[in-house]
Order: sequence, then structure tokens, then C-alpha cells
Amino acid sequence: MSIQNQQTKLTIGLFGFGVVGASLYEVLAQTPTLNAVIKKVCIRNPEKSRNAPLSLFTTSKDEVLNDGQVDVIVELTNDPVAAYTIVTTALRSSKAVVSANKKMIAEHLEELIALQKEYGVPLLYEAACCASIPVIRNLEEYYDNDLLHSISGIVNGSTNYILTKIAEDRKSFAQALAEAQAAGFAETDPALDVEGIDAVNKLSILLAHAYGTIAHPATLLHAGIANLHEADTTFAKEKGYQVKLVAQARKLTDGSIAAFVLPQFVEAGSRLREVKNEYNGVEIESSLADKQFFYGKGAGGFPTASAVLSDLSALRYNYSYEYKKLNYGEPALLSPDFYLRVCISFRNLLQVPHEQFARVEEWVSNDRRCHITGIIHCSKLSDSNWWKQPDISVILYPDGIFETFVQKEQSVEALVEV
Amino acid sequence: MSIQNQQTKLTIGLFGFGVVGASLYEVLAQTPTLNAVIKKVCIRNPEKSRNAPLSLFTTSKDEVLNDGQVDVIVELTNDPVAAYTIVTTALRSSKAVVSANKKMIAEHLEELIALQKEYGVPLLYEAACCASIPVIRNLEEYYDNDLLHSISGIVNGSTNYILTKIAEDRKSFAQALAEAQAAGFAETDPALDVEGIDAVNKLSILLAHAYGTIAHPATLLHAGIANLHEADTTFAKEKGYQVKLVAQARKLTDGSIAAFVLPQFVEAGSRLREVKNEYNGVEIESSLADKQFFYGKGAGGFPTASAVLSDLSALRYNYSYEYKKLNYGEPALLSPDFYLRVCISFRNLLQVPHEQFARVEEWVSNDRRCHITGIIHCSKLSDSNWWKQPDISVILYPDGIFETFVQKEQSVEALVEV
Repeated sequence: MSIQNQQTKLTIGLFGFGVVGASLYEVLAQTPTLNAVIKKVCIRNPEKSRNAPLSLFTTSKDEVLNDGQVDVIVELTNDPVAAYTIVTTALRSSKAVVSANKKMIAEHLEELIALQKEYGVPLLYEAACCASIPVIRNLEEYYDNDLLHSISGIVNGSTNYILTKIAEDRKSFAQALAEAQAAGFAETDPALDVEGIDAVNKLSILLAHAYGTIAHPATLLHAGIANLHEADTTFAKEKGYQVKLVAQARKLTDGSIAAFVLPQFVEAGSRLREVKNEYNGVEIESSLADKQFFYGKGAGGFPTASAVLSDLSALRYNYSYEYKKLNYGEPALLSPDFYLRVCISFRNLLQVPHEQFARVEEWVSNDRRCHITGIIHCSKLSDSNWWKQPDISVILYPDGIFETFVQKEQSVEALVEV
Repeated sequence: MSIQNQQTKLTIGLFGFGVVGASLYEVLAQTPTLNAVIKKVCIRNPEKSRNAPLSLFTTSKDEVLNDGQVDVIVELTNDPVAAYTIVTTALRSSKAVVSANKKMIAEHLEELIALQKEYGVPLLYEAACCASIPVIRNLEEYYDNDLLHSISGIVNGSTNYILTKIAEDRKSFAQALAEAQAAGFAETDPALDVEGIDAVNKLSILLAHAYGTIAHPATLLHAGIANLHEADTTFAKEKGYQVKLVAQARKLTDGSIAAFVLPQFVEAGSRLREVKNEYNGVEIESSLADKQFFYGKGAGGFPTASAVLSDLSALRYNYSYEYKKLNYGEPALLSPDFYLRVCISFRNLLQVPHEQFARVEEWVSNDRRCHITGIIHCSKLSDSNWWKQPDISVILYPDGIFETFVQKEQSVEALVEV
């Protein structure tokens, strides 16, 4: 077992020169010890003025992809369709790839894993989850031998920024969204953030590295924060909670995984509660290491560039994701059978089929809003759309996942907690 | 750049079969997918009953070290002298090594790095710092390209457990220490913990991976919690602080590093304040990623075993520490020239040469204790021993590092904050 092949020199072909791409260029140019040089940058709009020599840029993606000297493609466009073409072409040309495009990666993960295997080249994407937090590589490397009980996190900086402004500065949703966009934390298309799509894309990627579970994000139960009502904030506050958008995956007794993205009431004292504004935080629970928590900036150009740099650094010693749980273990299946304790918030009773609840625990209404708290089977949410209407929101309670539910004289003891 | 050499099978020679060793054995035996098998275990006392086949054990270290089939030595003894012999012999026999012995590693780091280079084999020691928190590998991999401003952390679970019990449960130091020992969080020799030696050993290791700085722990300014007085807890509480033992390294304007371990007043709202009992937490500040925080169990058999497992897993793809900042960059030097804002707590004025302060800001005394707050040059502490007497304690204030101090009509503006 010998030390080998350190400090490979990297010649990079870069796609995209936005905030992330430009700061990557700057750091690499200033730091020759990194042993990585950007040879060519493919951009869409040649008219824009950029802080780098003109000769660096091209609008022809083939010029970059077919360059025999380029051994690493760094894909930092914000277009998932273009990203897919670039990344798959690069892998097929046996070039290593670093990408930050979570949507593209989540939606094509199975194929991207197969391509890495077929062509024997790595695709790294630490920047695609929680930007600066090294969660993917830690899940891949540190928890492969561990019984990983759960992972739960605030993985979308933009919605967390909005929710923090709403809860702490009493802003309206519209005001808070505008501020997030002005601060550059929101995706180009805000729907990706506020409808929970960005978060579920990240959950899909995390599932592969945590449990070897490959699931298209569209198949995972998810909601965002677009439907949250002002009254929900008040309702949460009265109970001592704050609403956060949480992505989580939890191993059930039979080894299957309950995984979803939902707004959640978070208690004071919880580590996730302390994750504010554009920050992200991920809590990992495992049998050996117990609870661990990773915290850092989850959005913004520099934190993302930081993750890209660490992927480049990993490529220098030929690092690749092994997808250990998928390849060497027994990949875990998603569970279609668990219960959730949720609060459904709505205005019009006719919209809510409350008989869908296994048990209703609390029913509070005033002239503005109605809140039903109860236990509901996950399929009543994942197989239906009534709760996705603009005037209805679903919020999970803390420790709100249950494996089984037995209706027994309305007693709380009937619940078997995970 | 191709994917290669995945899933090397590891044949392990283990030294030590305490809590960590035994749980490592258990997990490896139960999990064939890990592709690692313990061939032989060297123990000191053959009389002890152990939960593994007798044929596994030997008392001859040579039997393990000379076994040609063994390609990895895992060193989990609690004897730094024996550990040194085992680890250096193994490296010289071109065997990869995993060790958890922070004292041995910190004191011999320069030699251990040279041996790895000379014999071309890796030595990994993630378990030596903050047990389950993957801080070494993250510093090595994620921050090499970044301007790393500072790292500060609670790195000793035992003293943190004691300080938590004192601050939150109003226990005496003696009671709290006894509880920490009963819970298995204290080192065999409690002096290693309470005198700050364990913490400074870890700081010494962190410095190498954070800044490429090789410093023997004995040369680093450090104090533990043994001299803290009950009145210090009260003094802290009155100011809204809690005392924690913090190891830190901070880059100054000239690129040199201020590094030390001192008890510190920690404000409410600080992430380190929320690190309680045997947990550890490390905050890393860098220009690209900004603030990051890693949190997890820092003591105990299972968290340590978890880190050892992740090192074994890394060996499977031939991972080794590159000591990037040492080998490819300009290693940072330790600064001998900075100021600290501290509180000196004492009973007998004659013991304290208060003229050593560059400025005294506050002087509070009652019949039990006297507390002087002021600015002091680091050399007044590192070059002297008066503050190490049992009846004197030194506690750092938050943001208490200053690059320069100009005495200017006692004005606070004279301080240039880092």
C-alpha cells in the first residue's frame, strides 16, 4: 500500500463564467501551487465584459470538449439541459468532470453513475449539495461503515433566508423573497427554491451517497414554502416553534428509508433552528458516531467555488465517488409505508379531506385560517394533490415520523416512534 | 484521469483491544462488505477475558509487525511510548498505519511525516482529533485552496464535560471530574485533559493540516482548566459568558499564526457555547467558504472507532495525507508577537506581576478572589510561569486577539482588532 500519483497537474475546460466561474478563475490564476490551469472557457454571450483575457473565451462547446489537452471539464452553467449534454459528452470523452448542477445531477444520477463506470472517469459534484459544506464526500467516506440512522438538513439557502426574515424580522413572504433575490441567494427561477424542487434535488443526491438509494427527485414527497400562510408563522410561534424547510431521510426498522422534503416546525434548542439566513446545516445520526452536525454557507458564488476547488483538489489524487452503498452494500429501498404527524393549514374546509387523517389530534380555527393537527399515512400525501393547492400548507411536527399507527382509543401510546 | 484501484482488501494487525479496538473488531467481523479483516491482535494482558477467539491474540508485537500478510497496522494502545515504536516500525516495514494516539503523533509529527515520505506508505489519524468529527481530512482537502483565516474549537470532550457540569449543574470541579471519569470520557491520566495537554496535542496536529505549521505541543502557549476557581464561573456568568477550553489558530496580517489553548469566556449565541458535555465543535473561517462549523462526539469508544473505520475506508483507495500546505505551499510560521485580552483571576496580589499588562481595563476584587481584565502581550505568558501557579487562572475574552497595541490615553480605539 504505497503513496502514489500525487499532484497530477490539471488542465481545465470551464463552462460558464458567472460568479462561481469567475472566482474560480481568479483563485486558480493567483495560486500556482494548485497546479490547475483553465485553458478555455465556454460562454454563451461573447458581448459581456469579463475580467479575463479575451483569448480565453469561446462560444463553441466542441472547441473545449474536443481539446485533447483538457483533462477536466468544470461545468458551472445554470442551464440543466446544456449541463447534461456537456457532462455526458465529457465523460464519454474520458474527461473527468466537476459539476455544480444539482437539478441535472439529481435527474440523471443513474445514467451519470453508469457513465463514470463505463468510461472509467470520475464526476464530482460537492458544490451541488449545500455549497461549502462537504456533505457528499463525508457521507461517502465517513459513514459507509456506520449504521446511518438519519440525515436531516436545511439544504436550500434561499428559502431559509426567506423563512428567517419572515420569522425574525416579520417580513412578508413577498418582501423576503425580493430581499433574497437582491442578495443573490435565489435561483434564477425562484420556483425551484420556493416549491422545494431545489431541496428535493439535493435530497435525491444525498440519498445516493447516504443509503445507495437512487430516486428521481420527482418521485420523492416534497413541498416548498410557497403555500405557507402568515397565520402559520403565528401558529408556530404560539407553540414555541419556527418553520424551516427540512430535507430528511430516516432508516426504518425494516431497513427501508422514509425520505421527503417538507416545511417543519423546529423547536428551540434544535441545531437546525440555529441555521439562519442563507446558511445550510445538516445533522447526521449514526450508531457509532452518534449525532454530528455540519454547518456552513449554502448559497452564493464563493462558497460554491470553494466546493468546486475541493473537488479539483480531490481529482489531483484520482479521487472518485465509489458509491459504496450502491456498489458494495445492499442499497436501501424507499419506504412507501410510514405515518407523519403534520399540521394542515387551510381556509376552506371543502378543500381538505380530513377523513384522510388516521387520527385528528387538534382542530383550531379562526376567521382567517384553520389548522388541523393529526397523524396521516404518507401515501395520503404522496398519492394525491389536494394539499398542493395554493391555499393549503402542510407542516411536519418535530419527531413526526412514525413506523406504524394503531388506532387504540385515541391514545398517544399507540404510536411507535422511530 | 481514470478511476483505479478501488476496494483494495485490507489485512489488519491491531494493537490494543480496549473499547475502541473491540468495537472495531465487532463492526469489521459483522460487515464483510468492508473488505477488511483483522488477522492478529497484540495485547498486553493475556489474562483478561475478551469477546473474540483466543487464537486472534498475541502478546508479541513482532509477531504482528513481521507478518508479511498484514498490510495495515491499526494502533489503538493508550501508551504513547509503545505507540511510537509500533507506528515507526510499521512505517519502516512499508505497512500503512492508522493511529488514534494524539500525544504520540503531535510530539513526533515531523519524523512521522518524513517516514511516510521515505517509505512511501500512509499514516492516517483522523481519530486523533475530535474523534468522530472528520476535521483533519476536511482541513487537508477542503481548505487547501482557501485563505484559511482561523480555526477554533472545543477539542477535548472531558474538560468540556466538566465545564458544562460546573456551569449548568453547579457541580464542583472535583464532582464534575469524577463524573467525567465514571462516564469514561476522561483520559487514563486526567492531567492530560485538565492541564490542557490533550487539547494542545490536538492543536499541534490541526496546525499541520490547516497551515503546514509543525510545532511541538510543548512550545505552544497552553493552559487547561485545573486552575479555574469557582469565583471564575460566577464572574463569567455575571458578564453573560460561560467558560470553555478553546484551542485556536488565527492568521495575522503578516501571514503568521497566533495559536494557543486557553480557557475562554464564550458569549451566548456563539456556536461554541452550544457545544456541551463530551461533544466537540470546531469553527473554521475562510475567505471563500466563510464560517463553517463541525460538531460531533469528541470522546468515547464508538465515535473513535467510527473515525478509525473511515481511515481504513480511505486506505482502500490509497488515500494519504499530502500535507499540502507544508509540501506545496509556504508553511506559516507561528507568531511570537500578538496581544491578548484576558482576565487573570487570583487571590494573592503578590503572585501577579500586574505591570506585565500593557493596559489594565478592570480590576474587581472581593474577599474571595480578584479579577484583573486587561491587554497583555503573548510573550508575557509564554515566557513565564507566574500564571501557572495553582491559585491563578487566565481566561481569554471573546475576540481577544490583537495584532498590535498602542498605548494612547488608555483609549480602546488604540487596539487593532484581528
